[in-house]
Amino acid sequence: MVITEIIEKKKQGLELSKEEINFFIDGYCKDIVKDYQASSLLMAICLKGMNERETFDLTEAMLNSGDIVSLKNIPGIKVDKHSTGGVGDKTSLALLPLVCSDKVKVAKMSGRGLGHTGGTIDKLESIPNFKVNLSLEEFEKQVNDISIAIIAQTGNLVPADKKLYALRDVTATVDNLSLIASSIMSKKLASNADTILLDVKFGSGAFMKTLPDARKLASLMVKIGTHFNKNTIAVITDMDQPLGTHIGNRLELIESLETLQGRGSKDFHELIIKLGGIILYQAKEVTSFEEGEKIIQERINNGYGLKKLFEMVSYQHGDVSFLEKLMKEGIDKTKYIIEIKAPRDGYVVTIDALKIGEASLLSGAGRKTKEDTIDFDAGIILNKKINDYCKKGDTLLTIFTNVDEHEDACALALDAYRIEDKPIKTKPLIYEVVSNEG
Amino acid sequence: MVITEIIEKKKQGLELSKEEINFFIDGYCKDIVKDYQASSLLMAICLKGMNERETFDLTEAMLNSGDIVSLKNIPGIKVDKHSTGGVGDKTSLALLPLVCSDKVKVAKMSGRGLGHTGGTIDKLESIPNFKVNLSLEEFEKQVNDISIAIIAQTGNLVPADKKLYALRDVTATVDNLSLIASSIMSKKLASNADTILLDVKFGSGAFMKTLPDARKLASLMVKIGTHFNKNTIAVITDMDQPLGTHIGNRLELIESLETLQGRGSKDFHELIIKLGGIILYQAKEVTSFEEGEKIIQERINNGYGLKKLFEMVSYQHGDVSFLEKLMKEGIDKTKYIIEIKAPRDGYVVTIDALKIGEASLLSGAGRKTKEDTIDFDAGIILNKKINDYCKKGDTLLTIFTNVDEHEDACALALDAYRIEDKPIKTKPLIYEVVSNEG
Repeated sequence: MVITEIIEKKKQGLELSKEEINFFIDGYCKDIVKDYQASSLLMAICLKGMNERETFDLTEAMLNSGDIVSLKNIPGIKVDKHSTGGVGDKTSLALLPLVCSDKVKVAKMSGRGLGHTGGTIDKLESIPNFKVNLSLEEFEKQVNDISIAIIAQTGNLVPADKKLYALRDVTATVDNLSLIASSIMSKKLASNADTILLDVKFGSGAFMKTLPDARKLASLMVKIGTHFNKNTIAVITDMDQPLGTHIGNRLELIESLETLQGRGSKDFHELIIKLGGIILYQAKEVTSFEEGEKIIQERINNGYGLKKLFEMVSYQHGDVSFLEKLMKEGIDKTKYIIEIKAPRDGYVVTIDALKIGEASLLSGAGRKTKEDTIDFDAGIILNKKINDYCKKGDTLLTIFTNVDEHEDACALALDAYRIEDKPIKTKPLIYEVVSNEG
Repeated sequence: MVITEIIEKKKQGLELSKEEINFFIDGYCKDIVKDYQASSLLMAICLKGMNERETFDLTEAMLNSGDIVSLKNIPGIKVDKHSTGGVGDKTSLALLPLVCSDKVKVAKMSGRGLGHTGGTIDKLESIPNFKVNLSLEEFEKQVNDISIAIIAQTGNLVPADKKLYALRDVTATVDNLSLIASSIMSKKLASNADTILLDVKFGSGAFMKTLPDARKLASLMVKIGTHFNKNTIAVITDMDQPLGTHIGNRLELIESLETLQGRGSKDFHELIIKLGGIILYQAKEVTSFEEGEKIIQERINNGYGLKKLFEMVSYQHGDVSFLEKLMKEGIDKTKYIIEIKAPRDGYVVTIDALKIGEASLLSGAGRKTKEDTIDFDAGIILNKKINDYCKKGDTLLTIFTNVDEHEDACALALDAYRIEDKPIKTKPLIYEVVSNEG
């Protein structure tokens, strides 16, 4: 097989065979197919598309490029979730302790994030002494003992995706549904849980800007999951404003702790309940989403979720007293605590999630490149959310930062807010649930 | 400027500005823009196209990436020609000695070829001691003394094209009109003659497979030349069967010598007359193509062209007695001389130029990679051309080769011929003349 012929075929809009896709991925991992050939093919895929069969085969080829986690020594239904990413998205921290039980196991490997804040692993590492690198034996033992473990990715999962993703990022070939879906799903399939819940966010702060695009991506990923015999459901959720009120690593930990005590912001609480209900349904603990939602609400009310989070932190050598201190006193004071004030009276009608995300990054909460270090205390609290009324001079949001030059962060944060005389029609948080059950 | 934004723009089918195109070419030459980014952009260009303005700017950016030949010390009209390449195309060898004179100067730099045979430079080097590497001073002196010099490219002409062409070849991004036209025209413009005649070939043995495609390419190149104030004309010529009868380096030299004596094959002779007429018109030696054609025919009849070719070979230290020997005795006998016989009675209706070209390459006459060496004596003579009648067992063509394993070459050559009961309607050799004069 010759790679130029495969590129030529896709350039002409023709369907690639399974063998051709395997040749591409396998050859690219072995550096037989060069970066410049891969990027040419990626651009042709962006412009000519791939059908479902090709996308399944691409996912499989990527999946087979590395290790697949074995969870065979962990009895019970292993559940997994994935979010396509948004501003203030601390879902895993609050949700997973609420769904795990003797029968429903959370054996999650997670990555570090590039972006406005760190990923789940960074947020957990913001707890002193929390150990994210466990051996597979320790990982299995922990899940079997307490039903939940969240650790940093170990082993060589989907190396093809690592290589391709880095290339797509610098060649303007990111935004193709088949490439996005196969990238996400190959990693989920390599993690090898029994059920997968996908949170596909759309809006200004998300990768998918419109509902139709989010719907297409959700549908394609559900089809991929189903094709590989995983119970896969996707929810399409709003990311026009940031999720919840806290953005930043320890700030999000605080909001998660609040939510696990029934005190979190309304939208984040609602999302946790909905997603939790679906996961319990996927795990066959219940026979309807609503039944599952009730159990999750009970587990918030009776402190089950908070207890599981503490158990996990303790098991992974994290400093539990630090969590208690966070709950009582909040984060350590940053060098600067800047309150951004409302320039007029009125209702908040827009909080541009992308701008808030960028302000959070500038405050030190995130990393732009792998080498950047994260300031765990930095971040933003939204004091006003959409449709909240404010008087001129009220605090809209508060920026916590140790960065001396924070003018841009402040300007961006202020610019993210729009205030009008009248409130807007509220949008739903969850637009759709996409499953293969029709 | 950021290259990913430029790629993204073209991916969306938008027009690139002059600054963006300059940034791409300049950055690529300096390795700021990487191969994998260039190939991604090239694929987007292949699929979304470039308009004329973008193509002009791309040509200019490539032209400015290196040296531009100065011909200011050579008085007279400097003429140049270019062929998009075909099988048996030895036009420069016979044509240029016929057009040069005290007023019309041929100061040509030529490249080596990859393909079925060598390029013009290889064919000249097949004459013992012929010197293709002259200093610019020697080059100018020779043109001023005898009106003609053909030398290997010196200096750093259009390095952007060298780099881009190599990349296009391995990323399936060759066949875009703007990329092809800017590649050819940037090199022609860097050679800096006053007039440019383009021979755009189409058919099975040419890069352009159809007349409409050839017409588009011709028209675009004429527009580019005109945009840069060069008198530019293109002719669209047939390459369904090889040009003339001889394919191979010394074999083509022989056919050129024959043609300069009025004895060449009909189609090649006709092409030389037509192209020569146009060049003399472009150089303002005559006021119509027909008038120019007459002069060329006279210069064949009175031996002027042959004399000029000998003068040039002699001036460039080539062994003139070798030419005389070639004219009398032909090439040295190769190890194998294989006559391919007609399998039936009838008229030759097809001679697939591509297959003949590949057979020529396999015989040793061409090179696939820069490192390959050329066998100057190897090649093919077509004993029958289209609409010639043959009896079963007549020789269709003769292969000259020193390669022991030549079965594939023979099979390809035989396969190139199709013989039917009736002759076909003859096609014109020259389909169209494309100029800016309307």
